[in-house]
Amino acid sequence: MDDEVRRHKYTLDEDQMPTAWYNIIPDLPAPPPPPLHPGTMEPVGPEDLAPLFPMALIEQEVSGERYIDIPGGVLDVYRQWRPTPLFRAHRLEQALGTPARIYYKYEGVSPAGSHKPNTAVPQAYYNKAEGVKKLTTETGAGQWGTALAFATALYDMECEVWQVGASYDAKPYRRLMIEAFGGQVHRSPSDLTEVGRMLGANPANESGSLGIAISEAVEVAAQNPDVRYALGSVLNHVLLHQTVIGEEALLQLEQAGDTPTLIVGCTGGGSNFAGLSFPFLREKMAGRISPWILAAEPASCPSLTHGTYAYDFGDTAGMTPLMKMHTLGHDFVPDPIHAGGLRYHGMAPLISHVYELGLMDAESVPQTECFAAAVQFARTEGIVPAPEPTHAIALAIREALKAKETGEETVILTALCGHGHFDLAAYDDYLNGRMVDEAVSDERFAAALATLPEVPVG
Amino acid sequence: MDDEVRRHKYTLDEDQMPTAWYNIIPDLPAPPPPPLHPGTMEPVGPEDLAPLFPMALIEQEVSGERYIDIPGGVLDVYRQWRPTPLFRAHRLEQALGTPARIYYKYEGVSPAGSHKPNTAVPQAYYNKAEGVKKLTTETGAGQWGTALAFATALYDMECEVWQVGASYDAKPYRRLMIEAFGGQVHRSPSDLTEVGRMLGANPANESGSLGIAISEAVEVAAQNPDVRYALGSVLNHVLLHQTVIGEEALLQLEQAGDTPTLIVGCTGGGSNFAGLSFPFLREKMAGRISPWILAAEPASCPSLTHGTYAYDFGDTAGMTPLMKMHTLGHDFVPDPIHAGGLRYHGMAPLISHVYELGLMDAESVPQTECFAAAVQFARTEGIVPAPEPTHAIALAIREALKAKETGEETVILTALCGHGHFDLAAYDDYLNGRMVDEAVSDERFAAALATLPEVPVG
Repeated sequence: MDDEVRRHKYTLDEDQMPTAWYNIIPDLPAPPPPPLHPGTMEPVGPEDLAPLFPMALIEQEVSGERYIDIPGGVLDVYRQWRPTPLFRAHRLEQALGTPARIYYKYEGVSPAGSHKPNTAVPQAYYNKAEGVKKLTTETGAGQWGTALAFATALYDMECEVWQVGASYDAKPYRRLMIEAFGGQVHRSPSDLTEVGRMLGANPANESGSLGIAISEAVEVAAQNPDVRYALGSVLNHVLLHQTVIGEEALLQLEQAGDTPTLIVGCTGGGSNFAGLSFPFLREKMAGRISPWILAAEPASCPSLTHGTYAYDFGDTAGMTPLMKMHTLGHDFVPDPIHAGGLRYHGMAPLISHVYELGLMDAESVPQTECFAAAVQFARTEGIVPAPEPTHAIALAIREALKAKETGEETVILTALCGHGHFDLAAYDDYLNGRMVDEAVSDERFAAALATLPEVPVG
Repeated sequence: MDDEVRRHKYTLDEDQMPTAWYNIIPDLPAPPPPPLHPGTMEPVGPEDLAPLFPMALIEQEVSGERYIDIPGGVLDVYRQWRPTPLFRAHRLEQALGTPARIYYKYEGVSPAGSHKPNTAVPQAYYNKAEGVKKLTTETGAGQWGTALAFATALYDMECEVWQVGASYDAKPYRRLMIEAFGGQVHRSPSDLTEVGRMLGANPANESGSLGIAISEAVEVAAQNPDVRYALGSVLNHVLLHQTVIGEEALLQLEQAGDTPTLIVGCTGGGSNFAGLSFPFLREKMAGRISPWILAAEPASCPSLTHGTYAYDFGDTAGMTPLMKMHTLGHDFVPDPIHAGGLRYHGMAPLISHVYELGLMDAESVPQTECFAAAVQFARTEGIVPAPEPTHAIALAIREALKAKETGEETVILTALCGHGHFDLAAYDDYLNGRMVDEAVSDERFAAALATLPEVPVG
């Protein structure tokens, strides 16, 4: 052991940080279906989105450019923690006894402890540039709310966050972190919004959901000209901002002299997964590499593996445009699992489209398998993962164990999108035998799907 | 803002990581006074320490070599997170409007979130090499316990931690993190040890102290041949291991083209402070640089500024050798401030010696000033500091504001030895007006000092 020099991390210099975001849309064999206005059923135009988003982000949302320059003011902030490290999981591999080589791209070194600042910072930047004074948003586990509170603090803006009730109750430290950055947090459903009061009256909504919290944040932004709304996932521009992850990982794997045969990331709204995989998908579509690209979703909220590909609302109250995506139905409320960031009824339309094009696969994982994987990971790699990426780690371990059977030298790249410092109550439950797997029933999924809005075939 | 390219972090390649620890003792104008056996009042020999520590660490404790090679097996683990980044606090400087340049060396990127793994890993490594099965230790805020649990997990050893009662109650997530790594945690004073039962019977000891927790951990280790004890600070070999921090910072400031005029770090037991400052002190003693070296201690437990330089026990029950150090008296129980890691009655004998030699200064800071500084730091730099390093940040800000008055281009280097993800209840108290400053009275300090052991002048 003393004589072995093995490399654990692959770092890049600041001047190797990507200076453009990658937009996958022009490289796809077909364009994704447009979002529709729920009143007219016509594709939404910039003017429909203007009450919620600044024009610069609306332009990115519909852009046909392959690369979009990252502004200097955003690069300046990125440079504090980017490029993030790519780790080789030597000790986990040893513990598994696998010939597979496992790499993980770690976004937990960011100020908010996750990949979320990659988009929070440009969103705050563009809003500030257009004179916006306050941003509203939803948050699940709290990583997105923390990231936006950090970003708005930098640009001297206000930040108001509706946090999903189940996470608000279970993870008080996340709220405190948001408050330390100067943000304001409400438990959702709240009585501060019309939609919160309406949905909160139904006891089934007591634990909240991302869909409900989005409705509340959207309502407040839509009613005030100085206020805009910021979304932490799902939309094209959010996925776009996250591609810095994959661009860096491409360079780092090159440094390591390795080519991935499997890329696996967890999917809630899909931004972390897209951020890691889209740049690799570009290389795959160009015929330069051929990794299997796999989404890991929670058994409790499996929009890709159990949902329908259809037009649906992004929020519970039906205030957003209709988006064609894999959905479990906009009023589906998933079990309050620990991976609060994955409790979203839908999937990013762009990922849904890529999935329909056959460019990727998905598998679902129950949460006890996730936490078994997480504890093994923590005790070998020394990082306690957030509950969300444990889904990807669990699938990485499944595949590494298959490689042990076959003897194949699989090269696995996974996204460790955040640390679990605010999620330790989940580890407590797991380690003390209090964690149960999600109750999943086809009937329940079918009932939620029955509420899908009717959209004329066009 | 868009056109400005300013560097936020200075990183080093893995091959620039120090491969030796720096031992300051041979460079000092006089050797530090030896620890004494409390029975014989003679200097302790290796055989006195053997029940508690492996021989390799005992040798390091008394070594006269300037440099001690870091074993390959330790470098292999260090390489996961080292070299750690040095940051330039551009945004904090702007907020203060100071001409001072402020740098902070950030150890929060380690698996345990602090500088503690720098010594936990070699301590576990050397114990493992000598066949030890289990390590016992104390922990205050929990950063040391987390680090040791991480390190023992890597080497497949057991870890049993006595956590100071006040911190155990206030910071449940720290315990959970230790458990996630596979360690076992007890609230101290506990009823598992003779000394815990004895001291726990006194209601004044209810909130515990590092001194009591040390006594408990030492008792268990001393009674079992397969078990050793690990200390997270104070001892020479612990300070030695931490010098990787300062060695890296020297290279990084060179990269930045800057020379520090002030080096400020917080002191509890002193290892973080020594780790940052000793390599710079070597350069200062050699006449190459001339920084002012300043320790920041809490007003509630000011061993350097209000203690006496005398022989005292390292623990409350008087089970350790007598060490000549700045002490408030071994049964002094500080107020339960949020910076649990600084609640130690004594100071590392080596730092005490350096202080007596006139090579450094110290100032104490009340905790509300610390948290005001911490919130300003978090909202500009994006990192929420642990309560301990907020003391150093507060003094850095004091000096940066002085520089604003004088116009001097002070260059400040401070140690951000850990993040505050497990300490957010303290921020909650501060932000909601519930934090009070420590009650400090000369009478109380004097009463504790009256219990110092009698040592024949030799």
